[in-house]
Amino acid sequence: MKKLNIGIIGAGRIGKVHMKSIAYSVPQAKILGITDVYKEHLQELADTYGIEKIYDDYKAMLADPEIDAVLVCSSSDTHSKIAIEAAEAGKHIFCEKPVDLTPEKVQAVIDAVEKAGVKLQVGFNRRFDHNFSHIRSLINEGKIGKLELVKITSRDPEPPSAQYAAVSGGMFLDMTIHDFDMAAFIAGSPVEEVYANATCLVDPAIGEAGDVDSAVISLKFASGAIGVIDNSRRAAYGYDQRVEAFGSLGAAVAANDTETNVTLMNADAVSTDKPLYFFLERYMQSFRDEMIQFVDCVLNDKPTPTTGLDGLNSILVALAAKKSVAEHRPVKISEIG
Amino acid sequence: MKKLNIGIIGAGRIGKVHMKSIAYSVPQAKILGITDVYKEHLQELADTYGIEKIYDDYKAMLADPEIDAVLVCSSSDTHSKIAIEAAEAGKHIFCEKPVDLTPEKVQAVIDAVEKAGVKLQVGFNRRFDHNFSHIRSLINEGKIGKLELVKITSRDPEPPSAQYAAVSGGMFLDMTIHDFDMAAFIAGSPVEEVYANATCLVDPAIGEAGDVDSAVISLKFASGAIGVIDNSRRAAYGYDQRVEAFGSLGAAVAANDTETNVTLMNADAVSTDKPLYFFLERYMQSFRDEMIQFVDCVLNDKPTPTTGLDGLNSILVALAAKKSVAEHRPVKISEIG
Amino acid sequence: MKKLNIGIIGAGRIGKVHMKSIAYSVPQAKILGITDVYKEHLQELADTYGIEKIYDDYKAMLADPEIDAVLVCSSSDTHSKIAIEAAEAGKHIFCEKPVDLTPEKVQAVIDAVEKAGVKLQVGFNRRFDHNFSHIRSLINEGKIGKLELVKITSRDPEPPSAQYAAVSGGMFLDMTIHDFDMAAFIAGSPVEEVYANATCLVDPAIGEAGDVDSAVISLKFASGAIGVIDNSRRAAYGYDQRVEAFGSLGAAVAANDTETNVTLMNADAVSTDKPLYFFLERYMQSFRDEMIQFVDCVLNDKPTPTTGLDGLNSILVALAAKKSVAEHRPVKISEIG
Amino acid sequence: MKKLNIGIIGAGRIGKVHMKSIAYSVPQAKILGITDVYKEHLQELADTYGIEKIYDDYKAMLADPEIDAVLVCSSSDTHSKIAIEAAEAGKHIFCEKPVDLTPEKVQAVIDAVEKAGVKLQVGFNRRFDHNFSHIRSLINEGKIGKLELVKITSRDPEPPSAQYAAVSGGMFLDMTIHDFDMAAFIAGSPVEEVYANATCLVDPAIGEAGDVDSAVISLKFASGAIGVIDNSRRAAYGYDQRVEAFGSLGAAVAANDTETNVTLMNADAVSTDKPLYFFLERYMQSFRDEMIQFVDCVLNDKPTPTTGLDGLNSILVALAAKKSVAEHRPVKISEIG
Repeated sequence: MKKLNIGIIGAGRIGKVHMKSIAYSVPQAKILGITDVYKEHLQELADTYGIEKIYDDYKAMLADPEIDAVLVCSSSDTHSKIAIEAAEAGKHIFCEKPVDLTPEKVQAVIDAVEKAGVKLQVGFNRRFDHNFSHIRSLINEGKIGKLELVKITSRDPEPPSAQYAAVSGGMFLDMTIHDFDMAAFIAGSPVEEVYANATCLVDPAIGEAGDVDSAVISLKFASGAIGVIDNSRRAAYGYDQRVEAFGSLGAAVAANDTETNVTLMNADAVSTDKPLYFFLERYMQSFRDEMIQFVDCVLNDKPTPTTGLDGLNSILVALAAKKSVAEHRPVKISEIG
Repeated sequence: MKKLNIGIIGAGRIGKVHMKSIAYSVPQAKILGITDVYKEHLQELADTYGIEKIYDDYKAMLADPEIDAVLVCSSSDTHSKIAIEAAEAGKHIFCEKPVDLTPEKVQAVIDAVEKAGVKLQVGFNRRFDHNFSHIRSLINEGKIGKLELVKITSRDPEPPSAQYAAVSGGMFLDMTIHDFDMAAFIAGSPVEEVYANATCLVDPAIGEAGDVDSAVISLKFASGAIGVIDNSRRAAYGYDQRVEAFGSLGAAVAANDTETNVTLMNADAVSTDKPLYFFLERYMQSFRDEMIQFVDCVLNDKPTPTTGLDGLNSILVALAAKKSVAEHRPVKISEIG
Repeated sequence: MKKLNIGIIGAGRIGKVHMKSIAYSVPQAKILGITDVYKEHLQELADTYGIEKIYDDYKAMLADPEIDAVLVCSSSDTHSKIAIEAAEAGKHIFCEKPVDLTPEKVQAVIDAVEKAGVKLQVGFNRRFDHNFSHIRSLINEGKIGKLELVKITSRDPEPPSAQYAAVSGGMFLDMTIHDFDMAAFIAGSPVEEVYANATCLVDPAIGEAGDVDSAVISLKFASGAIGVIDNSRRAAYGYDQRVEAFGSLGAAVAANDTETNVTLMNADAVSTDKPLYFFLERYMQSFRDEMIQFVDCVLNDKPTPTTGLDGLNSILVALAAKKSVAEHRPVKISEIG
Repeated sequence: MKKLNIGIIGAGRIGKVHMKSIAYSVPQAKILGITDVYKEHLQELADTYGIEKIYDDYKAMLADPEIDAVLVCSSSDTHSKIAIEAAEAGKHIFCEKPVDLTPEKVQAVIDAVEKAGVKLQVGFNRRFDHNFSHIRSLINEGKIGKLELVKITSRDPEPPSAQYAAVSGGMFLDMTIHDFDMAAFIAGSPVEEVYANATCLVDPAIGEAGDVDSAVISLKFASGAIGVIDNSRRAAYGYDQRVEAFGSLGAAVAANDTETNVTLMNADAVSTDKPLYFFLERYMQSFRDEMIQFVDCVLNDKPTPTTGLDGLNSILVALAAKKSVAEHRPVKISEIG
């Protein structure tokens, strides 16, 4: 069996997650090489995972004819540039989100990919989460009838620094973007209009940096269904990730995942585990499964489950949400870009 | 001990609920008399609950010096008129919601009550619900810190007829009004602005009658907290009544009530009870407890827990929500009335 | 409609529970009179519930031709004697458990009742509990197939005094007797053999008084099914009352009841309510429903749902359990009496 | 870093589970070689996991001085023989359960291991389960006070063939043995006496083969605590694996694990996932974690968490349970062997 030769660009936190997934859970793929702007830890990673090549830079990797596909795990501001070059080099691409913060550049990636005839999968890992993909399956099976409402609760355990919030593009672009994609995924329909009721309640420094940290975001989907996302940058009890789909025949509701299913009962309380702490704990299974699917799509020439268009759509919704806050009114996605 | 002599105006569904509560659970009160525009069943009720007097009409009741307090349980369009007359007659008043559909008339009731120096309690029974009042208590005890978000899910098991929806004032005034009051109760702060994302997904006839049946309603409270209510006129699995309060130190979440706590596990599924079917099943305890408190407030000269102002505020929010749908924009409560 | 005239013998804790149930929830019955060896509080009870007669003693009540039925709520050691006299007086009988601590005396009650042709219902209220009766219904509907195993967890929130434990007949006769009845009720079959693994872990004084406070009791039913009861005199988190039925097609499991369905999530824990504190909180609904059924059975000449035989069987199992501990071996019920 | 060189004896279902765990989750170890009486699939496994050596038989493996430790995953009847030889060859040993069906042979393994000064860990993987190990931690932290009761529910999704039941040593030795170990683990104390109430309710052929398929097993621990295990060879809803520890200050209760945390609510029911189907789904995490600990114990010269004595004790309890059924009486462990 021919294995897919993968190159990983960026060996930071998420790059290492994918490294481990491929090495241990995707026998159809081989990590041929890695590269990063920081080089100190690359040899140790190569040793651990049996990786043959360490490239000086991503250009060297793209120039290597043995590489079939690349994972773009570098810093966010380099995603679109590298992805376009990778497409031009004829490499299949798994690109971490956000593809870029501007719709034009995301579109440029989509165009480059189309022109080159390569695969592009965007890292919306949560679509592969056991709970959320099960909700999608129940909808597909007709278990809740015609979808009418999507509700998403998405709260981080602790806020980022105000500096980060300022440069990341803001909460909608760095955090809610996952929820915008999830909303469209569960709805089975793109968002058409958004109204964001957002404010700064968690950390005044975030507000001073011009961003929000708490929001209720109202959605209208092309299908006619409606939706709502509630966000907070800080949930004292951990990472709160719940999704609910409501339809003409019923509802499907995903609760949080926990470390154990043990209940402790004593004179103080009846208590259970808090939600898993943050995204690495909560979504490890989904990170693995998106890799399995990416490799399968490339090897067997299937359409990727999360496309450049999904990446573009989420950014458009995020920008519309920012505009909604700025202009204090509902904003149609068609007004953006 | 002097018992409070109560007269009940209107012996329909909700009038009978209060009759039973007072007769069996409020030893400090006595139902002295009843009246209704329909008279056939009054004698039987009087026999069952040991009620001495059946009045020809509410004016006769108000003229009876033995009556200390009245429950206004007549049809909604008569509430404000009767309440004002009751106040003028010096009777304490428990008035079912909505007090009236226009803010002016509600204000007139408030003014009359104030002038007469009588008590007024409005029938927002859900504030007395064991789950929701417990959330309020947890907030008061500081268990979730500073409140940042209120989330309410409120779905009826089946839609009303389109005719009813047309004359009731619409979903916001006949159904969501309870949720608007609950939102302010949980927030501990009035609603200042509302944006209603509402549509007709359940029954096209409701839409043709000019109303909506599905909504996501975004709220801003005077305190700075934000909120959201999601409504549907039809949940296939029954009456869905959930409330969540999120704050700086945690969250308190109320699940639905069920008939039993039995789980059935077999080859098909692991299943539990559906939510209690509708408001009579779900809220019976709260109907009883609001009566206990009303009687206590009158006898011991305490402020009532749900005031005319609460009634007014909920109507203002409902009207703002209607305006928000009509004008497709967020509407401040101060714009109404 | 002819109302059933009821006399209540014994106006202690349980007598008052039944008084309230009948007065407020059983319109087909009237509490005609009460009696008790303590007389101070009888007039107040009579006033509260509109009871006409206060008898000097139960013999006076039994002599009153207006009395149709009596509730035997006096001290346990008087149950059988009073019940026999009541039967001889032609009164229908609701008798609190235990009917008596010796099988002979229980049989004497059964014989007297049969001879007199009156109804006898024994106060195994838990059969009327919403959770446990629902399990029985699920079994009847075939939802778990052929029953193979009954599991009961029954733990009190706090132990009785050692003195009480000594005179009550011991844990099996005063506490587990309810569980023995529940086991037979769920199994739909009498217990045939019992092995009690019992010890004293909670309060050494109970052991010194010759009783146990902790037990795992293994059961064989006539049907071939098996069962187990675990008991403790003290659960730090409150009254733990769970039942599980397992069969060829699945299982039905009853969890504890709680005051609310609210979950509190904060940095410390995710916590929910403790179980309702003790039997008055936990079983109030069942106390009411057993009264409704008793009155219905008498008025409409139906067989009572909990018979003298049920009372006898539970005592036989309790005595067999005591013998099992004493002789450290499984004991057949047929060895008793 | 010196890696531990491991040889795996037996490449069947459980051998492959350990192979994958070590290859992907235990960087401190290297699978140097494998062997099996069936040889066809060995090369493919060696390729998949990068295993250098395929031995003709386990004797060849034991003769290889490069091998530091072996996993005994061969058929059960060969465990003790191979383990003894491995000890004599100076290899550390991870031995699947049961070590042997006779206490004498298990003791012989213990003696050989002690004499050779090698490590022995027995495959009681469930001690490493996230739920059950958390209960043990809660007990250690004093969260439930002094332990008084251990309750284990252990039901397989489907019965084995009657032939298997006959040769496996029977339910107590092939299935309940895990529960006996779990009981001692949770109790923190060995079982001293057992009474087994066991019968054949699932498959008459199992009864005809002389075995049981349903049981309630009552336990006394050396600590004075009591316990109970309920077993069935067939739960229609899947693999039911629950543990409860009850003590002077409270209780810790482990529910089943499920594939998702999604609840589906519709007109039929409110339903959730069934338990994970069987032990490979349910206990994969524990299989991985027991390998991590085994390697850590050998490399860092720590005592193994599941010892030969644990293996011996479980077999003694299983044999006592068989004797209890045969003789219809409680049996002390000291009566065995």
